[in-house]
Amino acid sequence: MTDAEARIRASFARQSMMQTLGAELGEVGEGRVTITAPILPGALQQHGAGHAGLTFSIGDSAAGYAALTTLPQSAEVMTVEMKINLMSPATGDRLVAEGRVIRAGRRITVVAADVWAETDGTRKHIAMLQGTMIAV
Amino acid sequence: MTDAEARIRASFARQSMMQTLGAELGEVGEGRVTITAPILPGALQQHGAGHAGLTFSIGDSAAGYAALTTLPQSAEVMTVEMKINLMSPATGDRLVAEGRVIRAGRRITVVAADVWAETDGTRKHIAMLQGTMIAV
Amino acid sequence: MTDAEARIRASFARQSMMQTLGAELGEVGEGRVTITAPILPGALQQHGAGHAGLTFSIGDSAAGYAALTTLPQSAEVMTVEMKINLMSPATGDRLVAEGRVIRAGRRITVVAADVWAETDGTRKHIAMLQGTMIAV
Amino acid sequence: MTDAEARIRASFARQSMMQTLGAELGEVGEGRVTITAPILPGALQQHGAGHAGLTFSIGDSAAGYAALTTLPQSAEVMTVEMKINLMSPATGDRLVAEGRVIRAGRRITVVAADVWAETDGTRKHIAMLQGTMIAV
Repeated sequence: MTDAEARIRASFARQSMMQTLGAELGEVGEGRVTITAPILPGALQQHGAGHAGLTFSIGDSAAGYAALTTLPQSAEVMTVEMKINLMSPATGDRLVAEGRVIRAGRRITVVAADVWAETDGTRKHIAMLQGTMIAV
Repeated sequence: MTDAEARIRASFARQSMMQTLGAELGEVGEGRVTITAPILPGALQQHGAGHAGLTFSIGDSAAGYAALTTLPQSAEVMTVEMKINLMSPATGDRLVAEGRVIRAGRRITVVAADVWAETDGTRKHIAMLQGTMIAV
Repeated sequence: MTDAEARIRASFARQSMMQTLGAELGEVGEGRVTITAPILPGALQQHGAGHAGLTFSIGDSAAGYAALTTLPQSAEVMTVEMKINLMSPATGDRLVAEGRVIRAGRRITVVAADVWAETDGTRKHIAMLQGTMIAV
Repeated sequence: MTDAEARIRASFARQSMMQTLGAELGEVGEGRVTITAPILPGALQQHGAGHAGLTFSIGDSAAGYAALTTLPQSAEVMTVEMKINLMSPATGDRLVAEGRVIRAGRRITVVAADVWAETDGTRKHIAMLQGTMIAV
């Protein structure tokens, strides 16, 4: 495990929101990070699908950690802004969010993320995020 | 309590994500809905502030229910897209989200929301959301 | 005229896009700037209404100059990102964009703008923008 | 040329904003449309680069026409909302915008676009757009 990955895994472990949602950190690559999460009984909207806040949370965190992989060891990132388009209800066995860096900068990093819902091994693209991270 | 408000309170009670976050439905007015939430130990990011997903979740739900107040009794709404600008860390005693309708339509409703962090009775504007709801 | 206003008027005069669109700088106040524009025959979309790019252009410039009013004399601003919700077609006598600062910062300024279409003295809210400016 | 392409080329020819900006319609494929534009002397911001409104205009139109390729012959599309992240100044020989469909729907189509600045045959990714089109 690289130092960058170790740093990101330690940071992820401190995000109690991720534990509450049952989220797990998947692959951590240069400019690309995956987070998976079940659709827990406590993370639903009024129709029984996953809440938009669940999809947003793992998409935003995946994008933020993707940004962190391109920054110096001492850096932290904060979300400046994030936009999400929700394309299908969050239903299925689990969600998979993949964040990636579009443009790395010293201060501002432009990021994107996609979220899929997996059911019986097939996946559906349910959301797309585009946003800005700032190094702090 | 109006029929519209009763309908919204029943819908809110079915959003298990709101219960997980400890969120409560406040005022329900025509085109304007308030949701409050504590910053629970299980809803934090890596620096100990509230996770962006917490702020997003209550802002998005407040905006969605604001849209619902302007629609016929049988309607439901889904978030088409939502954009959030995060201006300050979510720290303090509790968060207050106020959703409001900017343009009501038969199918598409444009909404906005603001989220404040309250500490000792003073409040700070920590996030602003702008998005689109669709009647389903 | 204050130094800040003089600086903004000189900058606006250098934005050739504003001249091409026939746009004029209106009021310049602390954190608030107005730009007006006709709907020229050369700025239309395929149905004869003003192009989304016209509405975006004056909204974005109004928001950027609003940000500039809150920054030191030597600063310039660039748009990091901007989101626009279009609520009605841009038709009428002229468009009026009002940009305003939501949160001023030393580097990052969160801004918003509204655009109205005026016809015979009445105005319709046709677009809402929310974005981020960076001092450069 | 397919009927869909012929229809899109006729529609593009009616967008006077595209002519004002010197924009040309490039490839028209299923769910994918390219628009190119010079950076005309009349489309600049205050520092001499292309105005954000130029980049937005061709990105938005490319995304809208991409959506149109997936809809029935009689349909038209309007932009519901569009978000743009600007990553580099619009400088160079010309801009190239590629719009594409992310999720086609009967009413709502989710789209994305990228804009590059080309200089001496090399290109730089200057902007990314994500938005929603509605069939009307």
